[in-house]
Amino acid sequence: MLNNKKGNNGLMHYRPEIKVLDATIRDGGLVNNFYFSDEFIKALYRANLKAGIDYMEFGYKADKEQFDVDKFGKWKFCDEQDLRSIVGDNDTDMKISIMADVGRCNYKQDILPRSESVIDMVRVATYIHTMPVALDMIEDIHAKGYETTCNIMAISTAQEEDIDTALEMLGKSNVDAIYIVDSYGSIYPEQMRRLAEKYMAIGEKYHKTIGIHAHNNQQLAFANTIECVAGGVNLLDATMAEMGRGAGNCSLELLVSFLKNPKYKLKPILKFIEDYMLDLKKNGAVWGYDIPYLLTGRLNQHPRTAIKVVEEKDTKYADYYDFLMEQE
Amino acid sequence: MLNNKKGNNGLMHYRPEIKVLDATIRDGGLVNNFYFSDEFIKALYRANLKAGIDYMEFGYKADKEQFDVDKFGKWKFCDEQDLRSIVGDNDTDMKISIMADVGRCNYKQDILPRSESVIDMVRVATYIHTMPVALDMIEDIHAKGYETTCNIMAISTAQEEDIDTALEMLGKSNVDAIYIVDSYGSIYPEQMRRLAEKYMAIGEKYHKTIGIHAHNNQQLAFANTIECVAGGVNLLDATMAEMGRGAGNCSLELLVSFLKNPKYKLKPILKFIEDYMLDLKKNGAVWGYDIPYLLTGRLNQHPRTAIKVVEEKDTKYADYYDFLMEQE
Repeated sequence: MLNNKKGNNGLMHYRPEIKVLDATIRDGGLVNNFYFSDEFIKALYRANLKAGIDYMEFGYKADKEQFDVDKFGKWKFCDEQDLRSIVGDNDTDMKISIMADVGRCNYKQDILPRSESVIDMVRVATYIHTMPVALDMIEDIHAKGYETTCNIMAISTAQEEDIDTALEMLGKSNVDAIYIVDSYGSIYPEQMRRLAEKYMAIGEKYHKTIGIHAHNNQQLAFANTIECVAGGVNLLDATMAEMGRGAGNCSLELLVSFLKNPKYKLKPILKFIEDYMLDLKKNGAVWGYDIPYLLTGRLNQHPRTAIKVVEEKDTKYADYYDFLMEQE
Repeated sequence: MLNNKKGNNGLMHYRPEIKVLDATIRDGGLVNNFYFSDEFIKALYRANLKAGIDYMEFGYKADKEQFDVDKFGKWKFCDEQDLRSIVGDNDTDMKISIMADVGRCNYKQDILPRSESVIDMVRVATYIHTMPVALDMIEDIHAKGYETTCNIMAISTAQEEDIDTALEMLGKSNVDAIYIVDSYGSIYPEQMRRLAEKYMAIGEKYHKTIGIHAHNNQQLAFANTIECVAGGVNLLDATMAEMGRGAGNCSLELLVSFLKNPKYKLKPILKFIEDYMLDLKKNGAVWGYDIPYLLTGRLNQHPRTAIKVVEEKDTKYADYYDFLMEQE
């Protein structure tokens, strides 16, 4: 049942093991500080259910000692009662995930035992130099009964040998899935193929699922995601109308229109976008491909200055390019 | 010197044979009926020269018996004196191209002998069922002294056997280059790899250059173009800020930022976009990725209804999807 294997006309098949994770609230929340209305979140939940989405990520489990609850919407914290106000006991086939950042989450205290929570999966986001903490989090959260993933961010700036070491560490851990994360949107499909091969080798050796989380700085988030599908990657992140920090993510509507599994339905996604996502943009939320993101992606830099340039509607692209080149 | 061959870390090399063609006026002209100011065209010519672009396409050679000159800007017709008013004798390394559509060009009369023209290359655009006319045009234009290409449009709807036959006919003709054209933006990179292999086999057999002209309906124009580069395709179409009919083309700024040949410069392109392309959009020209184009691309349909929906700012995507499914 392998999808998209070379010489196999893979586009005529599908792998039932492929799972789609909607990260609209979590990555999109970085655009609007997680201020989504309850109506929005409820409609998103319903749309994802109708569309056959496998996981819906509600946000972060951020430490309230570090982050002021008055400065962020509730999905930065994902309190149990807030989740339940949307999903009840989530008596559905769709699983609920949240993200826990290394250094920003008081996981031992704030992540409840699985039996007391409606959350199914916790995704641990880490930089490569904080892997030991990430592993401690993974083991704690796994022991509480959750599915776990490890999302090593910004791998385009990591040393190959460090990636290999991190993957071996994860292979030997209790983590369920390991994500390829292109935080800066700087990876070309050809490189993504090589990364997918590397991660898949660890996945096959240690029986871990491999995932992909792409950014759209160079209009490659969707292309890189389906390149990963061809390479055997099974856990696919996407967001409604590609909402996400900076250039945004892989578009859920593009991804679902690509996938061949009949369980996925495009129409509820289109309806949600027309009913809810367009209003977010109209009301001032800013995300999506733009030239400053191309430049930081191309130069393998964090998008923070590009986000500022785009928010300020500064279109002096050539000057901004000079500025970035001076940072190199 | 092969670029991007698998296992060869091709991203560290470049092929000097790669040529970039700027199709901003020609494909962009389909958005604004070719009404560009002379200042715009002159600035584009200068920007392309500075950026190291290899070919600049000025527009179509449309038959004035068929098309009313009062209803289109002059670049639909590309009269010799209009070209010369911009480029003089074009005493530069950049070549000038125009496009001639099968059935819309009085080529025997309107295309002058090469010695009387500043044009270097004529690209013949055809559907697969009009190949015999295309070949007559190619031989006429070749005999006049021009470089020629054949751009077989809408191949995503053609029969494989017909494509093979057309490629053999072209192989035996005097055409210099054959283009893969994804008119509907419906081709995924995996399919594009197979097409590139097919076209490259003919190119190697008959010593023809292979080109790629992609559309961005599924945010894959750039990805498909660089996929073709990896497969040996050497003639690459792109446009400033991806201006082109419907979802637009491969973005010139993305392409030039990707290519490794030091002759290509990104900054003049960024400067042109900020100085000229943004104003086109502000003044009402509409192009670029949008959900209705995703849907026609996905369904392998002509984008004409999507263009109408987008122009009318109709965001009832789910209804539009139903409408398209009824056409299937």
